[in-house]
Amino acid sequence: MSVITLSTDFGIEDPYVGIMKGVILGINPQAHVVDLTHALSHHRLLEAAFVLNTAYPYFPMGTIHLAIVDPGVGGERRLMAIQGSDYVWVGPDNGLFTLVLKDRPKAMVVHLTNTAFFLKTVSPTFHGRDILAPAAAYLSLGVSLNEMGGMISDPVLLDIPEPEIKDNQLIGQVLWADHFGNLTTNISQKILLPFLSAPSLSISIGSHILTEVLQTYSQGRPGHLMALIGSSGYLEIACNLGSAAEKVSFQSGIGLKVLVKHGTS
Amino acid sequence: MSVITLSTDFGIEDPYVGIMKGVILGINPQAHVVDLTHALSHHRLLEAAFVLNTAYPYFPMGTIHLAIVDPGVGGERRLMAIQGSDYVWVGPDNGLFTLVLKDRPKAMVVHLTNTAFFLKTVSPTFHGRDILAPAAAYLSLGVSLNEMGGMISDPVLLDIPEPEIKDNQLIGQVLWADHFGNLTTNISQKILLPFLSAPSLSISIGSHILTEVLQTYSQGRPGHLMALIGSSGYLEIACNLGSAAEKVSFQSGIGLKVLVKHGTS
Amino acid sequence: MSVITLSTDFGIEDPYVGIMKGVILGINPQAHVVDLTHALSHHRLLEAAFVLNTAYPYFPMGTIHLAIVDPGVGGERRLMAIQGSDYVWVGPDNGLFTLVLKDRPKAMVVHLTNTAFFLKTVSPTFHGRDILAPAAAYLSLGVSLNEMGGMISDPVLLDIPEPEIKDNQLIGQVLWADHFGNLTTNISQKILLPFLSAPSLSISIGSHILTEVLQTYSQGRPGHLMALIGSSGYLEIACNLGSAAEKVSFQSGIGLKVLVKHGTS
Repeated sequence: MSVITLSTDFGIEDPYVGIMKGVILGINPQAHVVDLTHALSHHRLLEAAFVLNTAYPYFPMGTIHLAIVDPGVGGERRLMAIQGSDYVWVGPDNGLFTLVLKDRPKAMVVHLTNTAFFLKTVSPTFHGRDILAPAAAYLSLGVSLNEMGGMISDPVLLDIPEPEIKDNQLIGQVLWADHFGNLTTNISQKILLPFLSAPSLSISIGSHILTEVLQTYSQGRPGHLMALIGSSGYLEIACNLGSAAEKVSFQSGIGLKVLVKHGTS
Repeated sequence: MSVITLSTDFGIEDPYVGIMKGVILGINPQAHVVDLTHALSHHRLLEAAFVLNTAYPYFPMGTIHLAIVDPGVGGERRLMAIQGSDYVWVGPDNGLFTLVLKDRPKAMVVHLTNTAFFLKTVSPTFHGRDILAPAAAYLSLGVSLNEMGGMISDPVLLDIPEPEIKDNQLIGQVLWADHFGNLTTNISQKILLPFLSAPSLSISIGSHILTEVLQTYSQGRPGHLMALIGSSGYLEIACNLGSAAEKVSFQSGIGLKVLVKHGTS
Repeated sequence: MSVITLSTDFGIEDPYVGIMKGVILGINPQAHVVDLTHALSHHRLLEAAFVLNTAYPYFPMGTIHLAIVDPGVGGERRLMAIQGSDYVWVGPDNGLFTLVLKDRPKAMVVHLTNTAFFLKTVSPTFHGRDILAPAAAYLSLGVSLNEMGGMISDPVLLDIPEPEIKDNQLIGQVLWADHFGNLTTNISQKILLPFLSAPSLSISIGSHILTEVLQTYSQGRPGHLMALIGSSGYLEIACNLGSAAEKVSFQSGIGLKVLVKHGTS
């Protein structure tokens, strides 16, 4: 059995996602297709990259992750497949796979140009159906990346906002908000750790200041902002029985700063 | 093949549901995972219990029903698995399975404490991914409940609103509204039956009075409230080409009364 | 393996779709059920027919397409199955399959009346669960249409709006809008072709006039209407980084005209 995950910005009201599943099953009837999300942001590729990154490690090794946020569909941008030692990714070469590639500098990256693995008719407006879904399906059948096109040595990489550490300060930012309004930051548990054990912790976001990092949502005072380590291992700003995103008027992609400080001991 | 259903309050915009499927497939690649609903009410456990109850009997015997509405995630509440003679349930011990347990007084109930069946790292905010999804997957592989933890003899049971029958009156209440605005009550077809054959039936809800129980939505006068026996076998208040929930300003969990009367013959 | 697609107007918030999957898996545990869309219009059957038509050809031959938009559930309308040489369709006989039937005048059409293939209890309000899902599942097991009921020789067919061609004018109309606001018309690439190569093309929709047919969304001036050939092979009116449906105040089912003209050479 081979698992293919689908992550797109297509929404699920139209039949587009189902159509891609039909194409995949037509090529590999044994494929097990799993929806990851179809609510990726249409134009904020980095945000989508972070969302994908929270999900793929939970799938069995060898899973093929097909991801599409592709405002340049039909234009000059390349379509590609990435072979890591753990997973395979298929999608547009527009930065969506920045995190995957930074973590896997030796991954093989192939430009999907071999029309033998396309549907017979290719619409310039739906490469997901006509090129990417077939590519994922053929890869799940064991076709090797080499057969699908030439190497790409310069895939598009977006700048990743890294947190800054200065003495007793840590300056990070919000990466994305989930549907509950929980705000995931780029501050990992690891770099946060020394701050947690130091005296007088403060975490600032907008005009709010938090002074402790809790364990669970239910520990938060209902309706108030709280900080905790989210399930993906990063500092998260949340609100028990409410939406942190609303409380701080978060709008995706704005780069809302989060400042962590401790008193000097 | 083993079927695992998923019912949560996670919504489907975020990748959380997909992540749980990845965890399940990593443990049992043969599992057939089916989404039941991801729009359960976040905090109204009894309403969620009734929604689940309309669905599970339509699945093949042996199906494992994983259900999560878990405002207390990471806190004191227990996680559990329930083995009935027909199905298995997995989820938090917070009343979500009240109806299941009332109907199965002899079911084995186990507290999920054996970390051998957890993911290696357990986040206090996502037990669905780290404990419950693995439990469902291992159960689908044939692991026995006994291995997963000790018995629970006092699972949380919520009060179930039962209809009152007084002479020629039947007082029930609305349990939940579906997405179309159809209102399902706790008045079963069986207890309603004597009222249907009696003279001068009246069904009151809010300020509305209905005088007959119809068979199908299309028999209702468009835009007006109607009563019928819903597909789950309970008295339903609906509106052909409209939303009954809107017409009576139904808000979930309020316990809106439905009064059925007949004239004495 | 047999694939069964589901297309309904049920939405996905309620457990109804999941229940149908449970019924199908109870009858054929090997069935591979794929959601096509659950956001079909409740009452605009022709629009739903066009949406279905864009999707089914991408599935493997033999796929069973179960489609439900059924405002007359429980009433006089018949339920039916259609056996084409390529696919099978199951659903209500209310015009939803007009396009399928027009393209397959020799298809066998059967009235689903054999209660041996129904669930034991049939609710008059949920034939999708009690009659149609079982029919699809039994057909996927190889039960023949003949066993399920008598022939239908007069299935309901809706009027299909065909584009008119008059000298240098082509008058078509919008059939449906997708979730992005892209408007699919009934003007096929084939009948549009002579206009494209003629001088001074103009495409009018509402008060807007477009003078070229582009290849991809990204070629469109951001925020402005554009014309292109959509992925289903029909003239589409779209808007790069916006919604064409909003721009022309499209409301489904209104029959918004699209006028294509060229100058005489």
